[in-house]
Amino acid sequence: MATLADITVSGAINLLSAFIFLLAFAILRLQPLNDRVYFPKWYLKGVRGSPSRSGALVRRVLNLDFRSYIRFLNWMPDALKMPEPELIDHAGLDYAVYLRIYLMGLKIFVPITFLALAILVPVNYTNNALVAVKMVANVTASDIDKLSISNIPLKSQRLWTHIVMAYAFTFWTCYVLLREYEKVALMRLQFLSLERRRHLWHTRRARAAATGFEKGVDRDFEPVHSVLVRNVPPDPDETVSELVEHFFLVNHPDHYLTHQASCGSMFATGVVCLIWNVVNLKVNCFKCQRFLVSICGCAPVVCNANKLASLVKKKKKEQNWLDYYQLKYSRNQSQKPQMKTGFLGLWGQKVDAIDHIISEIEKLSKEIEEERTRVLKDPKSIMPTAFVSFKTRWGAAVCAQTQQSRNPTLWLTEWAPEPRDVYWQNLAIPYMSLKVRRLIIGVAFLLLTFFFMIPIASVQALASIEGIEKRAPFLKSVIEIKFIKSVIQGFLPGIVLKLFLIFLPTILMIMSKFEGFISLSSLERRSATRNYIFLVINVFLGSILTGAAFEQLNSFIKQSANEIPKTIGVAVPIKATFFITYIMVDGWAGIAGEVLMLKPLVLYHLKNFLLVKTDKDREEAMNPGSLGFHTCEPRIQLYFLLGLVYATVTPVLLPFIIIFFAFAYVVFRHQIINVYNHQYESGAAFWPDVHGRVITALVISQLALMGLLSTKEAAQSTPFLIALPVLTIWFYRFCNGRHKSAFVKYPLQEAMMKDTLERTRDPNFNLKVYLQSAYVHPVFKGDDDDDEDDLLSGKMETESVLVPTKRQSRRNTPVPSKISGGSSPSLP
Amino acid sequence: MATLADITVSGAINLLSAFIFLLAFAILRLQPLNDRVYFPKWYLKGVRGSPSRSGALVRRVLNLDFRSYIRFLNWMPDALKMPEPELIDHAGLDYAVYLRIYLMGLKIFVPITFLALAILVPVNYTNNALVAVKMVANVTASDIDKLSISNIPLKSQRLWTHIVMAYAFTFWTCYVLLREYEKVALMRLQFLSLERRRHLWHTRRARAAATGFEKGVDRDFEPVHSVLVRNVPPDPDETVSELVEHFFLVNHPDHYLTHQASCGSMFATGVVCLIWNVVNLKVNCFKCQRFLVSICGCAPVVCNANKLASLVKKKKKEQNWLDYYQLKYSRNQSQKPQMKTGFLGLWGQKVDAIDHIISEIEKLSKEIEEERTRVLKDPKSIMPTAFVSFKTRWGAAVCAQTQQSRNPTLWLTEWAPEPRDVYWQNLAIPYMSLKVRRLIIGVAFLLLTFFFMIPIASVQALASIEGIEKRAPFLKSVIEIKFIKSVIQGFLPGIVLKLFLIFLPTILMIMSKFEGFISLSSLERRSATRNYIFLVINVFLGSILTGAAFEQLNSFIKQSANEIPKTIGVAVPIKATFFITYIMVDGWAGIAGEVLMLKPLVLYHLKNFLLVKTDKDREEAMNPGSLGFHTCEPRIQLYFLLGLVYATVTPVLLPFIIIFFAFAYVVFRHQIINVYNHQYESGAAFWPDVHGRVITALVISQLALMGLLSTKEAAQSTPFLIALPVLTIWFYRFCNGRHKSAFVKYPLQEAMMKDTLERTRDPNFNLKVYLQSAYVHPVFKGDDDDDEDDLLSGKMETESVLVPTKRQSRRNTPVPSKISGGSSPSLP
Repeated sequence: MATLADITVSGAINLLSAFIFLLAFAILRLQPLNDRVYFPKWYLKGVRGSPSRSGALVRRVLNLDFRSYIRFLNWMPDALKMPEPELIDHAGLDYAVYLRIYLMGLKIFVPITFLALAILVPVNYTNNALVAVKMVANVTASDIDKLSISNIPLKSQRLWTHIVMAYAFTFWTCYVLLREYEKVALMRLQFLSLERRRHLWHTRRARAAATGFEKGVDRDFEPVHSVLVRNVPPDPDETVSELVEHFFLVNHPDHYLTHQASCGSMFATGVVCLIWNVVNLKVNCFKCQRFLVSICGCAPVVCNANKLASLVKKKKKEQNWLDYYQLKYSRNQSQKPQMKTGFLGLWGQKVDAIDHIISEIEKLSKEIEEERTRVLKDPKSIMPTAFVSFKTRWGAAVCAQTQQSRNPTLWLTEWAPEPRDVYWQNLAIPYMSLKVRRLIIGVAFLLLTFFFMIPIASVQALASIEGIEKRAPFLKSVIEIKFIKSVIQGFLPGIVLKLFLIFLPTILMIMSKFEGFISLSSLERRSATRNYIFLVINVFLGSILTGAAFEQLNSFIKQSANEIPKTIGVAVPIKATFFITYIMVDGWAGIAGEVLMLKPLVLYHLKNFLLVKTDKDREEAMNPGSLGFHTCEPRIQLYFLLGLVYATVTPVLLPFIIIFFAFAYVVFRHQIINVYNHQYESGAAFWPDVHGRVITALVISQLALMGLLSTKEAAQSTPFLIALPVLTIWFYRFCNGRHKSAFVKYPLQEAMMKDTLERTRDPNFNLKVYLQSAYVHPVFKGDDDDDEDDLLSGKMETESVLVPTKRQSRRNTPVPSKISGGSSPSLP
Repeated sequence: MATLADITVSGAINLLSAFIFLLAFAILRLQPLNDRVYFPKWYLKGVRGSPSRSGALVRRVLNLDFRSYIRFLNWMPDALKMPEPELIDHAGLDYAVYLRIYLMGLKIFVPITFLALAILVPVNYTNNALVAVKMVANVTASDIDKLSISNIPLKSQRLWTHIVMAYAFTFWTCYVLLREYEKVALMRLQFLSLERRRHLWHTRRARAAATGFEKGVDRDFEPVHSVLVRNVPPDPDETVSELVEHFFLVNHPDHYLTHQASCGSMFATGVVCLIWNVVNLKVNCFKCQRFLVSICGCAPVVCNANKLASLVKKKKKEQNWLDYYQLKYSRNQSQKPQMKTGFLGLWGQKVDAIDHIISEIEKLSKEIEEERTRVLKDPKSIMPTAFVSFKTRWGAAVCAQTQQSRNPTLWLTEWAPEPRDVYWQNLAIPYMSLKVRRLIIGVAFLLLTFFFMIPIASVQALASIEGIEKRAPFLKSVIEIKFIKSVIQGFLPGIVLKLFLIFLPTILMIMSKFEGFISLSSLERRSATRNYIFLVINVFLGSILTGAAFEQLNSFIKQSANEIPKTIGVAVPIKATFFITYIMVDGWAGIAGEVLMLKPLVLYHLKNFLLVKTDKDREEAMNPGSLGFHTCEPRIQLYFLLGLVYATVTPVLLPFIIIFFAFAYVVFRHQIINVYNHQYESGAAFWPDVHGRVITALVISQLALMGLLSTKEAAQSTPFLIALPVLTIWFYRFCNGRHKSAFVKYPLQEAMMKDTLERTRDPNFNLKVYLQSAYVHPVFKGDDDDDEDDLLSGKMETESVLVPTKRQSRRNTPVPSKISGGSSPSLP
């Protein structure tokens, strides 16, 4: 058990490393060379250009203005200065609301901490149960335990304080949760009905028409006019497109505007799709997709081999090689680069690399063109899916919320996700297959959570000295060397586990994809939920009970229902010091590492060195990435869980949590403003999940406290605690009834209001043109990137002029104006 | 443990009593005197008149045609002859589908029984584990146990047979369930879109207009045009009615037709409402109904004192007394009946009874009129609720399925229940209050289920000899008499328990009413669910584990999770004989008692003797009652549970179940055709519940088998059984996804089709008139019953002429034609 001194040392180390990270970040970010790593978002927005236009080479690489180094923590207040409405404009509602999770953490835990430190700590400290126990049983108790509930003797009346505090904390948490839910729901509704975006599009489109480029103008498409229709039944006489048109003309005569049958989108699935088809085929009749005896009347999935998508990918790869060789040639003009045509360029005939690749690319382009025409014509590659647009928001709202046909598994309608948000591969999965997939993944996830240690343990056994010697005797002499041996023994098992944990989000994401969600945002949401469950069971419970999850499962099954909270409750206070260390390592130093972005930095410079030839290449090399909701959010939730569980048990843990929330808030606000690029916009659809997980943490904390108190032999107090989880769960249901619909439905009153407003304000707006090409599969607009990006950045610039309100606050964020040449990232 | 001989004796006794009941029924029903008890439905329908028109007095009272006694079981084939479509016309979809539950029982259990008897019984019988055990431990085993799984030795490979059978039974049950769900969903959709009813109404209305009566013509109102809107927010400038009109004119401009604000309906709540208001007031601010800090924006409930309803009730009572005295006077013309004006007629001034009551009634009529006018004018008695009707089914379907306003707790829309089905008292409960009520009732029901034995035990203690002696010493001499003592000891505790069980459905119904459901059908559905849970826990588990529910709860909490199925599984085969006896008593003799209808028979003759003066009175005395879904359905489900649990364990129980289902099917078909009058029509909305409960029974049976097998030390087989509940629960979710929407939504395609059809077929139909007075509170049309009933029966008669297709099959049911004078109930 760690003493106070241990924790102080650990705290010092972590603070120091966090400080070093921050210092490194402060220095690195000021170098113009790294500008594209630390401020990529501004480049993407087109507000910031390459610093190559003015100044000497040295000034382009190093920042020699020493005054800027003095204010090396300036980014923190800068990050906080941008007001929320502008943040929403700048980074989207998803990210703005994501930041509110940290804020909510502060709102919940700051008052709780004050209360706990002011009341619980004195109550705990002025006992001496631990001293008594120590005398008797020679148990070592740390100083931290003296401040925790462990220091209260059995049957003490002081335990009532903890019960009252548990009530107070629960009510405060619920209050904050409710207010946040309300606020976020309001923000979402406002965001969805923003007028601005359509006007922006107007301007952009006019400009695009003038310059001759028409691509890329649907970026800020508003989804409230469109509905995704799935499982269109097969019809012998009509194509999917005709069928959709007729169906909606008949059933929504006054509101139907246009539609886009998802022509040919299915070819992006490829191999994965083939594997999935095995599942489909097994349960569904191939022809009519009915399960044995007409369980479902699903449309057949047409799963084309993935030729076009793979061709496009291949072309891109060749293009990269071309860039590389051209760069090589331009650096060393004396020698034309050569390559071998064989496998991986290892053998075969030597040819001139550049010429060879150019001819290859030409060949590929031709093939792609042919394949594309073929796919567009082939009726087999048309999915039974369509994006239907309506004249009014009212019509779309009605269609999205109602059942269309007698068979509820056909003509499934739902709000269309943003075009960027669509996960094209999953659009055509029939109903029955979806249900089967959900079952399979549910079982698979359960097994993964509880038994993930088994394969890892066996790999670890393989990776041990004995395992290697047994399987590869010829390596014996090598691994008998002392250094290598110690590396294998000391690191390999840990690395195997770490590798698994690194791949875990990917595994969970694959699971979600297999499950058949149709938008990236829902994929991420589902993965986040799974990730959270995994963390709670394997990190939280795993750390508390020390033992692999399946061992716990075994003991839980064999334990009686009222023993489980006891087991957890008893272990909670003992592990306080461990979790304090965990918070410092993962929460403090980890977050500081996040802002430093070592991996993107290295990757960028590597790419820059190897591939970058033109500005466009550099833009491509600069990969800001996105936030990764499915990995980040569960991590925050772990802190909520720790904070709530320890609030009544070991209150000294709370300040560490507060520091984490505050620090992470600043860091992520900075990252979101300057780095992360949002792939899609779901309009904060994840908030009900966030809300639900905090409630889960609350209930876990209440059960743990109940278990702990029952071991304190305060039996008369337990009934008071039983009411808490009941009330909390009721509160959860109440909140969802009250606010969840804002995240799944769109009220008709709202829709009607906006429709009327728009009709009066802009009576001649041609909605049909506006919506026509909104939903086009990315493969079809794939290789016009060249023009598009340039065009877009140019246009974006103009826009920011058109919306002058932004100017004022942008001055507070580190955006250099074009005139100052970008060499001084932070303005006065 | 009962032996085979015991069971044979018990079976004989029960068969005999069932036979006696049937014989009594066969004789009693042939007496014209009892005609109105055994065929009230035909009287209500107006097809059958009083038998008083022809023949001598004796022939009017007794049936002297001995030939009819010979065919005394004729009612059985008669009951089966009416085809299902006609049954739906005759008794409504609810009852027709209710009968399908019994049929489904037969469909499930007949093949299972054959399979089990053919395979499992030989497998079980050809062992001698029980003999071995008997030798060792001197355990008594009945002959039935020799046919059960108990006879299989530990670790026997024969247990695989039971596992395979469990799979087979599960798949067969699921298959039947799925087919039935499909069929019922289809029947419901067809029923909802019936054209016939509107045409019927047309005819009736024309006739009513001709005869001058306009009441009662909305009986077969079709609900698909109307939507119930609740929680209309308060508005300072507009009345609820105006507000509703404006809101729907704005937000559903093309479809809104008319509406009925539920003016003054709230006064039916009275005292109960006042008590409930305490709950409301406690959690909601009185003025704006917001919970502390604006949790909900609910409209205020206007809860008028229940003056009008109580006045109407009082008048009815006086009317009854008037009838009584007039009858008395007419029998004994010599003496005018007198009464005392004081309390209960025990003291006070003596007056002429008839004159006094007539004047009282006049006074009351006046008061009622005044109160009615006052209520209609008083804005305070207008509820924030309205029934909104739409021009098209499409418009109504859209409105019912979508969210109207930004705040999802305001402008709540849902399908309006049938006018008969509306539970007026609950229409105005605000959202927040609903949620609180649900929580309270949830907790209360949990306490009721698990701790209902505690108050009963204490009452039983009071009712014991010692209890009475202690509390009422003066009774000591009386209860020391041996006979009285034995009565008290032998019967009183049982009577207390029986009384509680008799009142249980009422208690559960009150709970559901308090919970705030707005239709009688949903009240009954919820009560049925609660009743089922109570039965499973207290009858099924209670019988198996012998012990009060709270003791079981205690032991379950203290037991580990994998011990619980074991405890149940071990006890299941032991209790087989007990349940066989139970089925015979409750299922065979009980059902035979149902057909005899002893209570209505006695009540009818009592009323007939005391009150009946005119034919109208007789009609009133004849109270056919309704089926009581909330008490009957859970009882059937208990048989499903028993059948599924014992199918693999003790297959000899199955034939008893089959006999129950077959017998009950015939009896209830007869009762539904001839007796029960349906209060409302919900369109078989209960089917998802029925489906869910059979699935529950299936899962319980699988868990019990799993527990049983694990005690048989067949550990390697348990994993195969774990898959079963997982698959079953998945199947449940699949079915609900596939078919449940038919019970809660109305597809737009369907609506549009019907709309178009109607518009072309009947372009001049005035829907507004048709829908205008559909939803009127019963108090407002209360005292015109006199005309209405006569009118209705007259009209009904005409209708049956208008729909000649019915004639053919009606000949097969016991409906006498008017010419034969009604003395021979069964036609050749």
